[in-house]
Amino acid sequence: MLEKLNITIVGLGLVGGSFAKALKALNPQNIWAIDIDKESLQKGEEMGIIDRGYEEPEEPLKSSDLVIICLYPELVKRFVYENIENFKPGAIITDVTGIKNGLVEEINKILPQSIDFVFGHPMAGREKKGLEYSSSEVFQGANYIITPNSRNQKSSIDLIEDIARNIGFKRVIKIDPQKHDEVIAFTSQLPHIIAVALVNSDDLNVDTGSVVGDSYRELTRIAQINEKLWSELFIGNKENLLQKIEVFQEKLDLLKKAILEEEKEVLEEEFKKSSIRRKNL
Amino acid sequence: MLEKLNITIVGLGLVGGSFAKALKALNPQNIWAIDIDKESLQKGEEMGIIDRGYEEPEEPLKSSDLVIICLYPELVKRFVYENIENFKPGAIITDVTGIKNGLVEEINKILPQSIDFVFGHPMAGREKKGLEYSSSEVFQGANYIITPNSRNQKSSIDLIEDIARNIGFKRVIKIDPQKHDEVIAFTSQLPHIIAVALVNSDDLNVDTGSVVGDSYRELTRIAQINEKLWSELFIGNKENLLQKIEVFQEKLDLLKKAILEEEKEVLEEEFKKSSIRRKNL
Repeated sequence: MLEKLNITIVGLGLVGGSFAKALKALNPQNIWAIDIDKESLQKGEEMGIIDRGYEEPEEPLKSSDLVIICLYPELVKRFVYENIENFKPGAIITDVTGIKNGLVEEINKILPQSIDFVFGHPMAGREKKGLEYSSSEVFQGANYIITPNSRNQKSSIDLIEDIARNIGFKRVIKIDPQKHDEVIAFTSQLPHIIAVALVNSDDLNVDTGSVVGDSYRELTRIAQINEKLWSELFIGNKENLLQKIEVFQEKLDLLKKAILEEEKEVLEEEFKKSSIRRKNL
Repeated sequence: MLEKLNITIVGLGLVGGSFAKALKALNPQNIWAIDIDKESLQKGEEMGIIDRGYEEPEEPLKSSDLVIICLYPELVKRFVYENIENFKPGAIITDVTGIKNGLVEEINKILPQSIDFVFGHPMAGREKKGLEYSSSEVFQGANYIITPNSRNQKSSIDLIEDIARNIGFKRVIKIDPQKHDEVIAFTSQLPHIIAVALVNSDDLNVDTGSVVGDSYRELTRIAQINEKLWSELFIGNKENLLQKIEVFQEKLDLLKKAILEEEKEVLEEEFKKSSIRRKNL
């Protein structure tokens, strides 16, 4: 499938490195990486997950059929703007950014006719950052969201979907960028906010680690959070996120009131509802 | 250690069954179970995790050196009241109840001098209930809280601690019943409330399962919840729990306000704090 393609990964960190590892196993013609960090590039070459690393984008981009941009949201825009002349005519670009709405419009405005940007969001990550934590296993069984737009050719969307499935993603869903951002506010951003608020509300004055069960550990894993990336993602999607926080707050208040007033039936109803929903997830 | 002891498990469900399995491996003289459900007792005998099951408590209790009561909180009290004449003089009793404060006082009031009740709380469970989900593996590496009180003999506390370590618990911590209930409100009850509120605030109108990552799955596992048991636990510990919910709500409001007003520095500070705390857990 990829035998005739030159692929460039932009940003060889946790996600970019994981893509490189997973794609290398599919034997593309060449797999290159662009990064401002020389060490990561050298390490990627040593690990054998890229054929060559570049600090300057021009050379690899001019020959790349597929470009996978694994940068923070703000940097994706800047990278495309600065390299608009460097992409190979007919190239397909994709990204891994966690919010889509403004990004899709802004980038589509400046793309040349012959370049097709298929926006995507692999729902796989880790609480760590950097190439050393990258692993093709993070993709296994995970979900991949593609947000097609009217500029996209079906063949380009199909390619990204095929790649996603071939590197281990289980489900590929296509939704529009607006819906994506709403969905992500609930399924990813709100859980991170909750985990942080939970950990930061610890006022026990004991060694918390010795009095927790699995539930606290699980709920708080993602409270170890890349503060720059997520601040940007939250503020970039603030309308959706604030709406989701508010719905959550209403549900929490409902439970709180039922506990205060000892309304056992209300609690049991809510618990039955959540049990069924979670079971069907 | 247990070779000369007759042990009775009261309530052969998920936790009682897990205790039976784990204790059987330590070769006690006898291990019996009491349950109102005949089928569970038969199944326990067939599985070889108990030597014999009893629907009526008198016979096994009269010969038991150690009684492990694995019942819901309200039923623990009732069981002790109803069997106060049946316990063997010198017997040690323990429980697995998730809240302690009222329970310890009420039970201590009626105990004969020669009976020592060491209250305990293994921090291990599953979102399922029933003997068929029991497993000694749920205890491996988990925390065990003992809440000693002034009636307890050191030798009795030591026995429960030894057993806890021998069946796989990693850390055994001793705190008083009041502190236990505060700690549990935060580390166990609040996470359950949060998970339920999160799942029940899903208003996406999509197949949520196809758009979630690991974080949502992890945060919501415990939203599959035994509604009767947990309603009782929450209401029985409502002062502590309401206080913990409120501290959490304050932290959540702080993050919400920072997102609304795009205060990146505030967000980054909170994320750094949660990252350090979670790393040190």
